[in-house]
Amino acid sequence: MSATLEFAPDSARPAGPRRLTAPVKIAIVGATGAVGSQMVACLQRRGFPVASLRLLASAASRGRTLPFRSETVPVTALSEPALEGVDLALFAAGAEVARDYAPVALAAGAVVIDNSSAFRMDPDTPLVVPEVNGRAALAHRGLIANPNCCAVVAVMALAPLRALSRIRRVIAATYQAASGAGADAMAELRESTEAYLHGRPYQRQALAHPYAFNLFSHDSPVDPETGCNDEEAKVAQELRKLLGDEALGVGVTCVRVPVLRAHCIALTVEFEDPVEPEAARRALAAAPGVRVVDDRAANHFPMPSEASGRDEVLAGRIRRDASDPSGRSLALFLAGDQLLKGAALNAVQIAELLLAP
Amino acid sequence: MSATLEFAPDSARPAGPRRLTAPVKIAIVGATGAVGSQMVACLQRRGFPVASLRLLASAASRGRTLPFRSETVPVTALSEPALEGVDLALFAAGAEVARDYAPVALAAGAVVIDNSSAFRMDPDTPLVVPEVNGRAALAHRGLIANPNCCAVVAVMALAPLRALSRIRRVIAATYQAASGAGADAMAELRESTEAYLHGRPYQRQALAHPYAFNLFSHDSPVDPETGCNDEEAKVAQELRKLLGDEALGVGVTCVRVPVLRAHCIALTVEFEDPVEPEAARRALAAAPGVRVVDDRAANHFPMPSEASGRDEVLAGRIRRDASDPSGRSLALFLAGDQLLKGAALNAVQIAELLLAP
Repeated sequence: MSATLEFAPDSARPAGPRRLTAPVKIAIVGATGAVGSQMVACLQRRGFPVASLRLLASAASRGRTLPFRSETVPVTALSEPALEGVDLALFAAGAEVARDYAPVALAAGAVVIDNSSAFRMDPDTPLVVPEVNGRAALAHRGLIANPNCCAVVAVMALAPLRALSRIRRVIAATYQAASGAGADAMAELRESTEAYLHGRPYQRQALAHPYAFNLFSHDSPVDPETGCNDEEAKVAQELRKLLGDEALGVGVTCVRVPVLRAHCIALTVEFEDPVEPEAARRALAAAPGVRVVDDRAANHFPMPSEASGRDEVLAGRIRRDASDPSGRSLALFLAGDQLLKGAALNAVQIAELLLAP
Repeated sequence: MSATLEFAPDSARPAGPRRLTAPVKIAIVGATGAVGSQMVACLQRRGFPVASLRLLASAASRGRTLPFRSETVPVTALSEPALEGVDLALFAAGAEVARDYAPVALAAGAVVIDNSSAFRMDPDTPLVVPEVNGRAALAHRGLIANPNCCAVVAVMALAPLRALSRIRRVIAATYQAASGAGADAMAELRESTEAYLHGRPYQRQALAHPYAFNLFSHDSPVDPETGCNDEEAKVAQELRKLLGDEALGVGVTCVRVPVLRAHCIALTVEFEDPVEPEAARRALAAAPGVRVVDDRAANHFPMPSEASGRDEVLAGRIRRDASDPSGRSLALFLAGDQLLKGAALNAVQIAELLLAP
């Protein structure tokens, strides 16, 4: 059986729910990147009903293949015709590619789930984390945006906490892995570290600063006026959109650390009313997609090594913020796989939401 | 000329200034550790007037030597007699050794500058960062405490900022290097990373969690009630003592990152009154021991790779805290060499303050 769409695309797209019927013809744009290859793996691991899989990438990936189930799928060049005849296009490329090719995929009748920042703040485009605002996905008009990886990890904890009291302010410091800067940055971290350990010079290419046993402010452009970098601005505005609270105060410091693929976040959360740490712990323990790792006696808390390759966001260090005697602030520490819940898994979960029941 | 003390120690020690006369007979306790060996290097580099240098360590360091100027100084075992006849004892060992042997050194007539946490919060012991509260050192009663490394790095920025407006609250997330856990942890970071890169198993010994391309909550015990670890409690109480403000709110998250020897801190600072980022930048640029590294166009901010081996604390990312519309909060990012300003250099600077003019 081939996939069909409940609503065919037209120039005035319907605002109502538009679902995918299994099995689905899928294209992955940016399939050879760090996120794209994880999308392929997530589709397989989660048993997504795939009718056909088209792997698209830039010309540089010509000749590569990726395994999917028992097949070896060739990677082909991204082009306008390559997007014809697919039901679902998962975009795992940059914002520029998304701006150029998402309209092509939409015009060809596909639903697009885009991992880039291109459309996230577009008022007509739902920004979705299924555990948080899954219903928003069903109101899509063809295009759904996958949030910034740090916004996903943070909101997985903030959404269940918000049920305890309205959140007024979030202060976050991130510990972001190489994977967020792509497969090249992951390779640069490994190679430059190897060179450092052996006292060899290393010519860096992917990142502007030395990465071996070093950390640096996030590698996105810095607004000359505000001093915030693009990553920080994204996290702030996307958290407000995901939580549907334009008044939420968000102050973020985004830092790249020499870790391969899981992001951590130190969060301070100010609520409208006092919130007990134990109530926060219960809310997080009950939240789907969150795993509480908070063993004070064993000094065992969320770590990238345990978040990597894992679907859940790990939450721990749940305690009163010692700087606020009012009892309205809590502190906690999160770890989440940047490539999975921070990107590929979340996109595939959105696609699952769209499957016709 | 041998060193003399202006005031001989007695059972009722004078509260007045007690200075060192050059050249000074010095003992370093814990001389082979990460901090102790840097103390030797700092004394040499800064031309401290040393009459004699006794290097003391545990029996495990028997037979080792350290270079000092043109000499090769043998390391001898720490014992009570080994502390006799010295004018100045620099302690670079743990709190337990300090509790056992600092009283011995004091009784033998030495001035003690202790890098451990043993005496920092003792009301009779000055806790000193020379650029911040150097006068406090002169009121010592034999013993002066060197603060926690993160407290030193943070206070180097907070003290000049406080001149702009009283600081009400500090929220900090740290990125702490291996050096803070000692030379063994530094070796473990290198060796376990090498093993990881080659897919070899590694049996860790210095730390409780994997360190290669990983990070974890600080390796000090966690208070079962508050959920704060010892490091966080130290930073909070020492900042209050250094700044002389018992009402200062301090919320800290201390994290060990895979970096060798410089600590970073993401700081959010709430003032009593609105403070302009530009005023903060000027205050930091004028502060002795601080170097502003804040190039938005080049995305060049404080990094461990540039703080390592350097005396100054680097300060940058100076901007409004976007979570606070009142204009009373600023955010910034610091990097400081944990072994230098965070430990050995600060101790030697304290000793310099005590030199008779």
